[in-house]
Amino acid sequence: MITSPHNEKLKLIRKLRSRRERERSGLFVAEGEDLVEAAEAAGVAPELVLVGGEDVEPELLDAVSTLGSGTRVVGVYRRRWGEAGGDLSVYLHGVADPGNVGAIIRSAHALADGPVALGPRCADPYSPKAVRASMGSLFARPPLQGALADMRGTKVALDPRGDLVIDRLGAAPPLVVCLGAERDGIPPELEAAVDERARIPMRPGGPESLNVAAAAAVALYELRNRMAGHA
Amino acid sequence: MITSPHNEKLKLIRKLRSRRERERSGLFVAEGEDLVEAAEAAGVAPELVLVGGEDVEPELLDAVSTLGSGTRVVGVYRRRWGEAGGDLSVYLHGVADPGNVGAIIRSAHALADGPVALGPRCADPYSPKAVRASMGSLFARPPLQGALADMRGTKVALDPRGDLVIDRLGAAPPLVVCLGAERDGIPPELEAAVDERARIPMRPGGPESLNVAAAAAVALYELRNRMAGHA
Repeated sequence: MITSPHNEKLKLIRKLRSRRERERSGLFVAEGEDLVEAAEAAGVAPELVLVGGEDVEPELLDAVSTLGSGTRVVGVYRRRWGEAGGDLSVYLHGVADPGNVGAIIRSAHALADGPVALGPRCADPYSPKAVRASMGSLFARPPLQGALADMRGTKVALDPRGDLVIDRLGAAPPLVVCLGAERDGIPPELEAAVDERARIPMRPGGPESLNVAAAAAVALYELRNRMAGHA
Repeated sequence: MITSPHNEKLKLIRKLRSRRERERSGLFVAEGEDLVEAAEAAGVAPELVLVGGEDVEPELLDAVSTLGSGTRVVGVYRRRWGEAGGDLSVYLHGVADPGNVGAIIRSAHALADGPVALGPRCADPYSPKAVRASMGSLFARPPLQGALADMRGTKVALDPRGDLVIDRLGAAPPLVVCLGAERDGIPPELEAAVDERARIPMRPGGPESLNVAAAAAVALYELRNRMAGHA
């Protein structure tokens, strides 16, 4: 039973809050029973698991967790990266909010057969917030770091100013749904690299765009249905 | 020019971080140019606006903003509540994450003609995080506090264990899309009060559910299309 906050395992968990430390070590932290169970279900073995009250005093575990009081278990895992592929996948460019990155990894796992690729200026998918927002989907479907050019298929940028309404888009697989930064939309270098620009139709007088994770979910839902010949 | 952190206006902005203080005063804070512009566009007058470098020393404005460094403007507004109505609206029950509540208000503004109603145990839509996540949609489409019984129309609960796939649901308006707490799903009291339980189809082996804001966007997108006779 760990009884000192200076314990090396607790120190490691604390240090892994930093992106630099995650990149240096290749490790990350998953907090809470749901996530540790999701890792197990995906067949991903932990480097280290600490259970409050068994391996460590509960208050010491609470103190290293970003969830705070009542954290029952914390696991340390090795970061993994997926490979491009699938009939429907996602490419993100400048999606800096970790909650959005995690939610998109979860939506892609739910609705698509391919991974989420992370281009420039995206949040670290292995940050505590992104891991939590993925609800464990990043164990089953690790994201991919890479360039859009490495993705195979028709590249469709979701863009509120796009020419095509998304439900009129040709849906011959493979398709890569490309999403840009929430505020800035599709940057010029991405616009030049995509094959189509499609929009989700919005009500007149409403906002210009959806939240990027909401837009990703709608696009994956629509394109998956169209591929399956539902529409 | 305000030069003291003890200024009453700055004190008010700081106090409004607390839900209790927002409820007591009926006021809330919107931070940043986007949101202050969204209020203006929606015809909502501020109680108070402070522009960094004009009305207040920039560092003092940064210090009261939850956005931190570089905040150019902060506005204080009166909380407003909408009314039930529209062909397509949303009812939330136990959606405790303010980012999700704000994103759903934005999605409803983009995709539906009715408001978002907040049932028990929802995050305060006027918290800084929810206001930001709504991207100003809550000025144009104020949410509503109320009971499901006050909402007119067919109540459809989104439920991963629902009998009906959402694209097979009858879409005669008015419809109220009901969403429960992310982890716990549809609580028994809500289940008893809805007319239908519909699910968004998920890939086998994938997660049980989508993030609640992603699910809301997909459901509003699908039901709006079906109402318009697209499907």
